[in-house]
Amino acid sequence: MGKGRLEAFSDGVLAIIITIMVLELKVPHGDDLASLKPVLPVFFSYILSFINIGIYWNNHHHMMHVVDKVNGSVLWTNIHLLFWLSLFPFCTAWMGENHFSKWPVVLYGFVSMMAGIAYYLLAHCLAAIHGKDSTIARALGKDRKGILSVIFYIIGICFSFINSWLGFSMYVLVAAMWFIPDRRIEKKLDADKK
Amino acid sequence: MGKGRLEAFSDGVLAIIITIMVLELKVPHGDDLASLKPVLPVFFSYILSFINIGIYWNNHHHMMHVVDKVNGSVLWTNIHLLFWLSLFPFCTAWMGENHFSKWPVVLYGFVSMMAGIAYYLLAHCLAAIHGKDSTIARALGKDRKGILSVIFYIIGICFSFINSWLGFSMYVLVAAMWFIPDRRIEKKLDADKK
Amino acid sequence: MGKGRLEAFSDGVLAIIITIMVLELKVPHGDDLASLKPVLPVFFSYILSFINIGIYWNNHHHMMHVVDKVNGSVLWTNIHLLFWLSLFPFCTAWMGENHFSKWPVVLYGFVSMMAGIAYYLLAHCLAAIHGKDSTIARALGKDRKGILSVIFYIIGICFSFINSWLGFSMYVLVAAMWFIPDRRIEKKLDADKK
Amino acid sequence: MGKGRLEAFSDGVLAIIITIMVLELKVPHGDDLASLKPVLPVFFSYILSFINIGIYWNNHHHMMHVVDKVNGSVLWTNIHLLFWLSLFPFCTAWMGENHFSKWPVVLYGFVSMMAGIAYYLLAHCLAAIHGKDSTIARALGKDRKGILSVIFYIIGICFSFINSWLGFSMYVLVAAMWFIPDRRIEKKLDADKK
Repeated sequence: MGKGRLEAFSDGVLAIIITIMVLELKVPHGDDLASLKPVLPVFFSYILSFINIGIYWNNHHHMMHVVDKVNGSVLWTNIHLLFWLSLFPFCTAWMGENHFSKWPVVLYGFVSMMAGIAYYLLAHCLAAIHGKDSTIARALGKDRKGILSVIFYIIGICFSFINSWLGFSMYVLVAAMWFIPDRRIEKKLDADKK
Repeated sequence: MGKGRLEAFSDGVLAIIITIMVLELKVPHGDDLASLKPVLPVFFSYILSFINIGIYWNNHHHMMHVVDKVNGSVLWTNIHLLFWLSLFPFCTAWMGENHFSKWPVVLYGFVSMMAGIAYYLLAHCLAAIHGKDSTIARALGKDRKGILSVIFYIIGICFSFINSWLGFSMYVLVAAMWFIPDRRIEKKLDADKK
Repeated sequence: MGKGRLEAFSDGVLAIIITIMVLELKVPHGDDLASLKPVLPVFFSYILSFINIGIYWNNHHHMMHVVDKVNGSVLWTNIHLLFWLSLFPFCTAWMGENHFSKWPVVLYGFVSMMAGIAYYLLAHCLAAIHGKDSTIARALGKDRKGILSVIFYIIGICFSFINSWLGFSMYVLVAAMWFIPDRRIEKKLDADKK
Repeated sequence: MGKGRLEAFSDGVLAIIITIMVLELKVPHGDDLASLKPVLPVFFSYILSFINIGIYWNNHHHMMHVVDKVNGSVLWTNIHLLFWLSLFPFCTAWMGENHFSKWPVVLYGFVSMMAGIAYYLLAHCLAAIHGKDSTIARALGKDRKGILSVIFYIIGICFSFINSWLGFSMYVLVAAMWFIPDRRIEKKLDADKK
């Protein structure tokens, strides 16, 4: 079975998620600078989510690039990932509109964590069907970065109960960590060519 | 005529349907856990619909994979299927917001049933233009699963008049039945190769 | 320049237009059958627009199939068509919510007419760059059907000032006329093969 | 790494941006011509943004056409461009609903300017990885048009503080300047063939 439609469907869903989030930036009624102020927290929340979805698209792109085949399990693991990502617009708006208060930040962390786990499952499902010596399996290795993200999100959630900004900064940290596309795959590919 | 654009258009529409449903999860005004409570029924309703659309995409993917050609009738039968699927966001929100009460559950079942019939028509339309001995025609066979789904939805609708949760569980049953991608096509393909 | 991305972009825009129209079906607050009643006119309006966009996608599909090349003018003529089609969700909702009263029906006809003219321009722009003896130019011929649609829309708009349902039935007539995909192109292709 | 998915994702995001802007055209409650009047400024604002996004898609199309490879930096520079473009629906609605008053016009200019800068960065990032003698690098040249756009937007923003219509006309001027697809690339390609 080809990977083409899986990529196309994922691209479509990710493109829509990243774009409809902007609908949560409610157009203010006033026309002065001050009326933009209540939109600002949602806007900051929007930037983080935009980068997060961008990271997922980017890494998805890199990962599918070295994949040869997909099966029914991969299709569903992928839909499972898209499910958690689809909750980003809701969490982004709730967190922004409530000025990064406790529970919204906790929920944002929870959904981010579940998306992280879902990506981990997808990566390992793909590695499993390609065998231990495949490019993807070796590039993934022990997947420290994937596991670390999930741990950081858990720490972030715990921190949010003390101070929600502390929790939020953990989420920013994870985004910063992933901002650079997954060099592991590029490196393995280069190494294979030699 | 190629099947490429049919797949691309269907992927696009399905990706949008599955994603805009999340817009019906209205962001609550409060910022505590309690304010998430009214969102929960819509969320459960969202999960079922997400899985349902995922199933359709998955099976559509499998079916189009073994198809060589499409014609005008296929294009329209496909648009007919997309029409019923496009009503899912509306039904999902109505059912969730009314806590799975009678009429919304009936309507959800009706739209699901019509989508099931539309998929049946599309599958048989494709089988017809490929001939009785084609992979798709033989994989489809008597299409017991397709017919069974429609019967289950009818039973679910009837049950809803007695107890809406009883009806709802029938819909969950159909989703569970289809959760596993259509192995029939994969099996036929494998058998053909031997 | 390839036609691939033109098709992809058009498919994307058409898929989104056809799907976001459903957002105009506002979820009613009540949970009985009676509360669905105010949604019905918007629903009928939705069906017509769904079929109309389906027709455009279908014919666009057929037309691009016989096209070899595109240029800057084609790109813009295509965006011009998408512009008018993008106004369908607005017109559909206005017409439905006002129970097919005069001005909304007139506007719906106007936008349909402009979309018809835009499609005519796109078809003739494509025919022009492919030359008089190309498949597309000969398939298009005098384009009676395209011209007839525009005339019917003008008649429909005029009729709407007398009785809006009379105007509306003209729009249904045009949709019925196009419901069958553009056989001209398929016929010419078959004739060419012989 | 292939450019296919970058194009697909960009097409998806641009198609969604161009289409969801129409959701900001709020359906009026009245059914006479007068009730359309408050929608008109948003509509004019919509036309400009539709053309602007059309221009970006068009030029993106032309630019990616002559590109052979992409890397991680290109992916992120592209997402950066999409970020600024994703703010168009918000700015369009704010500007339209406030009848082109000062601050909304300033914000529209600011977002347009940032999108212009982001496009400039993307173009030069692509030119950098293809080398000084590549088609894209030579077609881009000193990129006077790109730099000019940004300067015009800055002038437009300054003008808006005097008279917002004056600023707005600068934005229209930039759109007019880009309306014609980037002939430079087409010319270079033709020249190369000779």
